[in-house]
Amino acid sequence: MSPFPSSAPRTEHWQHIRLTRQDGVATVTLDRPEKLNALTFGAYADLRDLLAELSRERSVRALVLAGEGRGFCSGGDVDEIIGATLAMDTAQLLDFNRMTGQVVRALRECPFPVIAAVHGVAAGAGAVLALAADFRVADPTARFSFLFTKVGLSGGDMGAAYLLPRVVGLGHATRLLMLGEPVRASEAERIGLISELTEEGQADKAAADLARRLADGPSLAHAQTKALLTAELDMPLAASVELDAATQALLMNGEDYAEFHAAFTEKRAPNWRGR
Amino acid sequence: MSPFPSSAPRTEHWQHIRLTRQDGVATVTLDRPEKLNALTFGAYADLRDLLAELSRERSVRALVLAGEGRGFCSGGDVDEIIGATLAMDTAQLLDFNRMTGQVVRALRECPFPVIAAVHGVAAGAGAVLALAADFRVADPTARFSFLFTKVGLSGGDMGAAYLLPRVVGLGHATRLLMLGEPVRASEAERIGLISELTEEGQADKAAADLARRLADGPSLAHAQTKALLTAELDMPLAASVELDAATQALLMNGEDYAEFHAAFTEKRAPNWRGR
Amino acid sequence: MSPFPSSAPRTEHWQHIRLTRQDGVATVTLDRPEKLNALTFGAYADLRDLLAELSRERSVRALVLAGEGRGFCSGGDVDEIIGATLAMDTAQLLDFNRMTGQVVRALRECPFPVIAAVHGVAAGAGAVLALAADFRVADPTARFSFLFTKVGLSGGDMGAAYLLPRVVGLGHATRLLMLGEPVRASEAERIGLISELTEEGQADKAAADLARRLADGPSLAHAQTKALLTAELDMPLAASVELDAATQALLMNGEDYAEFHAAFTEKRAPNWRGR
Repeated sequence: MSPFPSSAPRTEHWQHIRLTRQDGVATVTLDRPEKLNALTFGAYADLRDLLAELSRERSVRALVLAGEGRGFCSGGDVDEIIGATLAMDTAQLLDFNRMTGQVVRALRECPFPVIAAVHGVAAGAGAVLALAADFRVADPTARFSFLFTKVGLSGGDMGAAYLLPRVVGLGHATRLLMLGEPVRASEAERIGLISELTEEGQADKAAADLARRLADGPSLAHAQTKALLTAELDMPLAASVELDAATQALLMNGEDYAEFHAAFTEKRAPNWRGR
Repeated sequence: MSPFPSSAPRTEHWQHIRLTRQDGVATVTLDRPEKLNALTFGAYADLRDLLAELSRERSVRALVLAGEGRGFCSGGDVDEIIGATLAMDTAQLLDFNRMTGQVVRALRECPFPVIAAVHGVAAGAGAVLALAADFRVADPTARFSFLFTKVGLSGGDMGAAYLLPRVVGLGHATRLLMLGEPVRASEAERIGLISELTEEGQADKAAADLARRLADGPSLAHAQTKALLTAELDMPLAASVELDAATQALLMNGEDYAEFHAAFTEKRAPNWRGR
Repeated sequence: MSPFPSSAPRTEHWQHIRLTRQDGVATVTLDRPEKLNALTFGAYADLRDLLAELSRERSVRALVLAGEGRGFCSGGDVDEIIGATLAMDTAQLLDFNRMTGQVVRALRECPFPVIAAVHGVAAGAGAVLALAADFRVADPTARFSFLFTKVGLSGGDMGAAYLLPRVVGLGHATRLLMLGEPVRASEAERIGLISELTEEGQADKAAADLARRLADGPSLAHAQTKALLTAELDMPLAASVELDAATQALLMNGEDYAEFHAAFTEKRAPNWRGR
């Protein structure tokens, strides 16, 4: 399915997460509801490798990240991760923490928008996964807890000290990361941490609707918009303007731009191709 | 009028925009009300060259950017720009997109504050022109639409993927650029996109008042404040602190700082000279 | 008290500020209430050298910056600083402005969280000192005025043009720095400039409580959270994720992380050691 396939086979089954695909929309569900979807080594590794695979393919145009059961994700499992890391040596600890960071980089750098569907708890690494998404569609039960200091660790975990100030500003980010206290949906909306607040119980549905809309729209334009937002956080103005110009010139040669103009002229809705 | 004039003559007449000047305040009006001030190649080129000329001069101390008629600016003209770009080759497309980016760079880098007076629609490139201004003075009819994806293009147009996250945060910016939906004045104010919300129909007047106040104030201090805000978005803390120190040392040798102290001592209002 | 002491003696008495210490919490009080705690050359120099000394020690785990009397700090003293700088030569002006910038850098780079307790006026350099703190705990009488342009200087003073856009966004920051108008507590809270709004007269108490909580908590985790927030404002995503990984691996070898796990397993509160 990749435009440039290598010898590597496609993974047939992801053991630690649940993956469904439907016409360009991938839905990844954290599926350990009895543990509030606490993350395991396997879940991190599956997310890392799945995102790498999907990024090589052309088949996914939007991805939903959701949690089964009472909440989104309670973060790293206290027994399986915190306990295990206490027995690790330095090299192993670095491998583990780099892996979690790779998941965040993959979420920011994959060539399709990512929508986190959040209800209930999004804690620790769960809060950062949601933060790394492009959209946070949440219902009023959502609460985000960047609780790393509460376990004796740095609030800057998996890129949180980079991302959170760029989403909510340095003042709020300092408070959230330093104190680790829960942010309820109403405050999260007020400070810009939530993209869309839904009725209770409607986050999954609203996230699916948004993913469908994005996948059925001009998806190459969406992918490039995401790529530029990600890249230009790290670029100066002059270079950003140049990158925008080159990107726009590229897309003006694309099918969807011509299709828009044809549809506009013919007074009909565009038939987007995603290229 | 420039402190260092070259051989280049000053443009006598701008065909594609309306320019008025009054005692240090330049007002640029987009003046195709029958087309909601849709931008043409000529309008972009005039804005680019006008801003370059004004930046070389000492005569302008504040600039207002406004729109005639029912709205601020509906963006690039569908017929004159979208249609024409479909027939362009790669080099031409790059020239066009670089030109639009140059207008944004000029708005950010010109040595005087820019005030966008927004009522009604500010769409596409019109929304980015307003975004690139230092102040957005808007009335309740204002609505900003970064609608690039709706025409099959990247939301990162003319520096929007650089500027918007720095104005409203990455979460809101992603939503606005990816989905292209209109942001009404009340939401724009809530997320920090509007600098001053006026009564209906009062945006032009309030923008003119602000420009007058800035032009009649310590305008070199205003110009340097703008230059530092623009530069320090792209600089680390240590270098920013050094740039601030050098700038402040420079201005402490200036006339306006001495004038403030004299006026304060004499219990009178300062007579600002802008130097 | 430093883990790596040099020959330099510890300062016994700070003449221009009031310092108290109690079990890991340092409280620095600007103490010229008859002048609304206007800053003098001595006060800046004391802040610079005190923060350098405290940063070398291990004894301080949180710092409160407060103002005696009717307000927090009215900024540089009009007579003692503005008057004096008018007589300075270029090198002296640069020395002065670099010193004030060093105070801001020290506040951002010191290895413990800083809490500004703000009531009444926080103007000019006083507003920037509060801005450079990690937390701004303020009561409803607080008002922040970045009034540099009102004295003929650049709004980018002591890093303000770097910090303020990263706290409240570029739009609000431009307005505040360019116009120099007071921001009252309600607006400051709305735009993210205040971390915690207290009842009237309770800012000092709330700041002391927060400092106590931070000092008694996992203070190495807090220190690293601050260091990463400060550093990653100036770093790209990929490097930030790597820094987070290395920091987290380090802290996973620390005592507090093991203590959290032991306490969790034993169903008791952690006994934080700050290492």
